[in-house]
Amino acid sequence: MTITIALDAMGGDNAPREICKGAALACQEFSDLEIVLTGDAEKIKPCLAGASMEARKRLRVVHAAEAVAMDEQPVTAIRKKRDSSMRIAMEMVRAGEAQGCLSAGNTGAIVAGGVLVVGKLPTIDRPALGVPLPTINRWTFLLDVGASVRARPVNLYQYARMGNVYSKKILNVAEPEIALLSNGTEEIKGDEVVAEARETLAKSGLNFKGYVEGDDVPWGRADVVVCDGFMGNVLLKFGEGLMQGARSIIAEEMGHRFLPKVGMLFMIPMVKALWARFNYEKYGGTPLLGVKGTVVKAHGRSKALAILGALSAARNFIVRDGVGQIREELE
Amino acid sequence: MTITIALDAMGGDNAPREICKGAALACQEFSDLEIVLTGDAEKIKPCLAGASMEARKRLRVVHAAEAVAMDEQPVTAIRKKRDSSMRIAMEMVRAGEAQGCLSAGNTGAIVAGGVLVVGKLPTIDRPALGVPLPTINRWTFLLDVGASVRARPVNLYQYARMGNVYSKKILNVAEPEIALLSNGTEEIKGDEVVAEARETLAKSGLNFKGYVEGDDVPWGRADVVVCDGFMGNVLLKFGEGLMQGARSIIAEEMGHRFLPKVGMLFMIPMVKALWARFNYEKYGGTPLLGVKGTVVKAHGRSKALAILGALSAARNFIVRDGVGQIREELE
Repeated sequence: MTITIALDAMGGDNAPREICKGAALACQEFSDLEIVLTGDAEKIKPCLAGASMEARKRLRVVHAAEAVAMDEQPVTAIRKKRDSSMRIAMEMVRAGEAQGCLSAGNTGAIVAGGVLVVGKLPTIDRPALGVPLPTINRWTFLLDVGASVRARPVNLYQYARMGNVYSKKILNVAEPEIALLSNGTEEIKGDEVVAEARETLAKSGLNFKGYVEGDDVPWGRADVVVCDGFMGNVLLKFGEGLMQGARSIIAEEMGHRFLPKVGMLFMIPMVKALWARFNYEKYGGTPLLGVKGTVVKAHGRSKALAILGALSAARNFIVRDGVGQIREELE
Repeated sequence: MTITIALDAMGGDNAPREICKGAALACQEFSDLEIVLTGDAEKIKPCLAGASMEARKRLRVVHAAEAVAMDEQPVTAIRKKRDSSMRIAMEMVRAGEAQGCLSAGNTGAIVAGGVLVVGKLPTIDRPALGVPLPTINRWTFLLDVGASVRARPVNLYQYARMGNVYSKKILNVAEPEIALLSNGTEEIKGDEVVAEARETLAKSGLNFKGYVEGDDVPWGRADVVVCDGFMGNVLLKFGEGLMQGARSIIAEEMGHRFLPKVGMLFMIPMVKALWARFNYEKYGGTPLLGVKGTVVKAHGRSKALAILGALSAARNFIVRDGVGQIREELE
């Protein structure tokens, strides 16, 4: 069976070059994969020049006259820019011409397109963006990281159910431990929304562990951590900033010292091993869960390898029928 | 002038030994400081045996028959345990027998005691816990980190005002840049609460920068970052967990490799320099702002040096009349 993914070639900080390179890598890695690049054909074609003959056979271009900018108002952009690369990719999913789509563009527009073009599953009130995080003990699937802002208890409940499916079917966790992110582990903690979701989840039949705290996320004390999109967004960006900051400070300190440079030579194998273990780019790709097709978001700063990772995540979600599984879980 | 601080000797994971050691260090460092240790006199006295003669002169013990446990319901603990070391320390502040108090105990109980025993300032709806964070560009004062759970716009506004005072008067920032933590920097971001606070702050006369995102916190893109206590609590613990986790992973990797151990020898000066720059324990101490006296919380895991840091922060807050400055700012 061929799997067709529509890829928004104009989305993200490194579009279209890195997006196209990532597409070529993915076609080389997965022989069942066909990728439709949507966007400015004039700009895309030269970027495909480096692809192997084998990959080229499964790379198609569909011209799109417009592109959604990173800072555009999401709903307006999706509604008005009917010829945008992002909207065309999503239309292909709706029409069944592609089983899934991927974009590294405007996050809000991806969510809006998921709802307005691809369509919500009838049993889901609001879709969620989830991200698999490499933590110390395991992979933790965190959601929502920004599809919505605030959530009602029913939304948190549905996020938990969708996270359960993703963890089980895509990340291969036998019986995922589900937890709610709160300001303490005791039952008296949390605000009203979280407290109500806690009660519902305790009766849900899920393997629900109650609350986890902020430090339980990096330690990996649950397989699925549920929070509202405001919190998830801030947390994810804070973690990214902290890691980048630490790297930049170490580089700065190394800059005006000689001994650490020598020391670093001895550390290269270790740093490489750690990088391989925690480089989330490799597994990149943030699925939008709760819509009628496979819609995956890649990080705006994605380069070719991150696009390859996200395409691989999207392909996996399609092969394992993620959408069908979520539909079943919530019936 | 002598400055008297009442110190809850029974609060925290390392009480009373490390608390007493920290008190002795502080008396040695600050010749104007007198510390009243509240708690079980039988247990405290042996812990003071190591203190210098000079420090001993300014260390007093006030016996307290009870102690508030870390997991106790805060309001009940403060109300019922009238003979607890924490409550007695706070009573001393209310009675004017001490200018401030410090505890590494139950955070909720410290906040409850601040409100019920020491008393709120009349112009403050809810007090806030603030923490100075060492970031890449500067010190950022983050509040609220857990005095309340959710906040109304007026609370966020008052946090901003109090943070402004702390940054200016205690951290010596000339014109502190104030920002609201949100899920994006654009004006359309945020939930209703944050959006309303944004409008109020824009008209407040403060040096208000609008929204900052999660990654702006570690990069230090503002002097004061305001959020609700739920968010602040999760963020702070997440950051702590991430740092501890990174340390534990590196230690683990070093454990079964030889070369990195050699490399580390070359790096010791750099690691020491970074540690000195980012070891927040040295500057530890989380003030409870918005109450009628100086109330400072230390981390539950505090050892002697962290207690010294927190005592130094409390002393500083007293010397610079932090309470009076906040009263004035909000008049």
